Amino acid sequence: MTKILAVNAGSSTLKWKLFSMPEETVIASGLVDRLNLPGSVFTVKRPDADKYEVTQDNIDYRLAAAMVLSHLKDAGIVKHLHEIAGIGHRVVAGGEVFSDSAVVDDTTLKQIHELSQYAPLHNPIEAQYIEIFQQLLPNVPQVAVFDTALYTDMPKINALYPIPYEYYKKYGARKYGAHGTSHRYVSKRAAELLGKPLSDLKLITLHLGSGSSISAFDHGKVVDTSMGFTPLAGVMMATRSGDIDPSLVTFLAEKMGLKMSDMIDILNQKSGLLGISQLSPDQRDLEAAQETNPQAKLALDMYANRIVRYIGSYIAELNGLDALIFTAGSGENGIDMRQKIVDQLSYFGIQIDHDRNQVRGKEQVISPDGAPVTVMVVPTNEELMIVRDVQRLTQK
Amino acid sequence: MTKILAVNAGSSTLKWKLFSMPEETVIASGLVDRLNLPGSVFTVKRPDADKYEVTQDNIDYRLAAAMVLSHLKDAGIVKHLHEIAGIGHRVVAGGEVFSDSAVVDDTTLKQIHELSQYAPLHNPIEAQYIEIFQQLLPNVPQVAVFDTALYTDMPKINALYPIPYEYYKKYGARKYGAHGTSHRYVSKRAAELLGKPLSDLKLITLHLGSGSSISAFDHGKVVDTSMGFTPLAGVMMATRSGDIDPSLVTFLAEKMGLKMSDMIDILNQKSGLLGISQLSPDQRDLEAAQETNPQAKLALDMYANRIVRYIGSYIAELNGLDALIFTAGSGENGIDMRQKIVDQLSYFGIQIDHDRNQVRGKEQVISPDGAPVTVMVVPTNEELMIVRDVQRLTQK
Repeated sequence: MTKILAVNAGSSTLKWKLFSMPEETVIASGLVDRLNLPGSVFTVKRPDADKYEVTQDNIDYRLAAAMVLSHLKDAGIVKHLHEIAGIGHRVVAGGEVFSDSAVVDDTTLKQIHELSQYAPLHNPIEAQYIEIFQQLLPNVPQVAVFDTALYTDMPKINALYPIPYEYYKKYGARKYGAHGTSHRYVSKRAAELLGKPLSDLKLITLHLGSGSSISAFDHGKVVDTSMGFTPLAGVMMATRSGDIDPSLVTFLAEKMGLKMSDMIDILNQKSGLLGISQLSPDQRDLEAAQETNPQAKLALDMYANRIVRYIGSYIAELNGLDALIFTAGSGENGIDMRQKIVDQLSYFGIQIDHDRNQVRGKEQVISPDGAPVTVMVVPTNEELMIVRDVQRLTQK
Repeated sequence: MTKILAVNAGSSTLKWKLFSMPEETVIASGLVDRLNLPGSVFTVKRPDADKYEVTQDNIDYRLAAAMVLSHLKDAGIVKHLHEIAGIGHRVVAGGEVFSDSAVVDDTTLKQIHELSQYAPLHNPIEAQYIEIFQQLLPNVPQVAVFDTALYTDMPKINALYPIPYEYYKKYGARKYGAHGTSHRYVSKRAAELLGKPLSDLKLITLHLGSGSSISAFDHGKVVDTSMGFTPLAGVMMATRSGDIDPSLVTFLAEKMGLKMSDMIDILNQKSGLLGISQLSPDQRDLEAAQETNPQAKLALDMYANRIVRYIGSYIAELNGLDALIFTAGSGENGIDMRQKIVDQLSYFGIQIDHDRNQVRGKEQVISPDGAPVTVMVVPTNEELMIVRDVQRLTQK
């Protein structure tokens, strides 16, 4: 039995999950929240134990990592820290350098730092955590698992933008995508559930959460994804606009006397469901309000429409479709939204069985038997994908 | 027999066509080119006469209009100028004010001026020409025919962007579309050729020229279009990028130390087919070069792909499709590009007959008999649509 740790670090949170491999069971998981703030909260969950929680002011990144390891030992989750055979880190931007996860060495770490221009809020912090864990557990191999790796080798016709070609060469101006680890997991899992090799299938995976993205898989290769150079692009999201005429952004910045960076912040944080509804970024709030609040209904209608449009465009790109897979928060739990989306796809033979669709967060086929396109719910598991990558790359 | 003049004015050109109505025949047409420049060129064509051409320095807007009217009389094309029963002007931006063409009065003219913020390079010039013709022919009714009118009442889910709702209310931030007169003409004409009322049909019209746009018609109502707040958005074009992650625009502007307005100029003038190929904005040049020039081929592949994606998304929105209609320069003449596009749509039952497709600039069904979706070439005729609107609105 091998223990592998998956780390998902953000600017104010550290999420982790310890797996027992190859059984792929979770031994413990935890969250350190409100990092570098008064009242930081350190919590740990285990399958057969009460939740552990302590509050302490201003836990910083180094202390957070050290507390996780101490707790694993002190609570008897591991006997010795050297039982941890590997650590996998989610890293947002892998640029064109990484088309797969990578064992961390000095070069890898340097490259992750250098790719910070593509994810200035993420890569520097993720690199910092890798360094911290290197110091705390110097003999444990670490693996960087990139959100973008899935899309690195995407066909150029979809990866490139119709802008001067030299911007791609000089500045790396291309589509990098996001949520790749999630799309990779659910596409693989869907193929298992369908009992067919991924290389025989045309799939569209819908990762619908507060950030949403859609990917198209053609016989095992990803061919397109809705997120772009950054995670602002693609479908409408909770607070993000998704695709929008760039000229409009300039027009609005001028009208309001705002800098472009402020406009981009507005497109990231005040748009999407929140912007249209002027009520909430949360789909559930809008579903509760839609009967009496026309803007809440408009926001939900627009959200479904943007997803339906992308599905149509990807069916065209794939020239066919075997299965449509819903995952992530809203994809796994949004019963009404799934129905709303699929109801608009009947021309493609995509249908949903009303009873089967009454499911939350559970693997389930929700299309009727014999439907030409299988519609499924497959809960995502990015951490499992991360520890699988650690095992694959470190235990050859 | 009534004579009606269609005027299409740009910053450096004045195009016009004189129709005999209700026969809808062209009596004469002309172009004044290089306005306000040395070597302005004034040309007139007639069905059964040699081309007339004079060159004169610095013809300005007023003189150009006066020369057109003088020539009509001097060359005997009309006996008296009062034979001209109406003048229709193409106007680019109609905002949310105009959902149909409009007879020009003081209010209309004021509104066209006020809408200049949405088309700063077009509306002021078009308004100026209306004023010039009012002075030259004070008793002749004039009609403004707006490029955007077709889209004014488009469903809100497609007309609005997922951005803060107040930007729509305060600044008119919405999708206005473009090429509306062309899409309106070909959708109507396609229905006639299909022998069915437009109100029974689901249509996608592809206006593919140096500017390209795609519109979706559901039972006679336009439901979506690819151009956005400005004509920059949508599919890839000759020199325009079409849709692109707005964050990338900011990123590139910062990298290169450019103002956003310069970046938008680059997206309008140096992108698209030209940007990717680094060779030419002209599809014909790229088709000639593609065998030996990979970037020329990539540009054509990307162009077809963006159109295919939009067709897929509109089939989803329409939840079906009766006919796909090609129009404008490349749509009417681009035999290879039509084949390339339709070859990627076989899953939707969209097919092309290779022999029927060997057609340029002529009305023709190019799908095989009995195909579930009719594919057609319908040459556009915006001027005819303009004079029809003049007749409809002035001769009730």
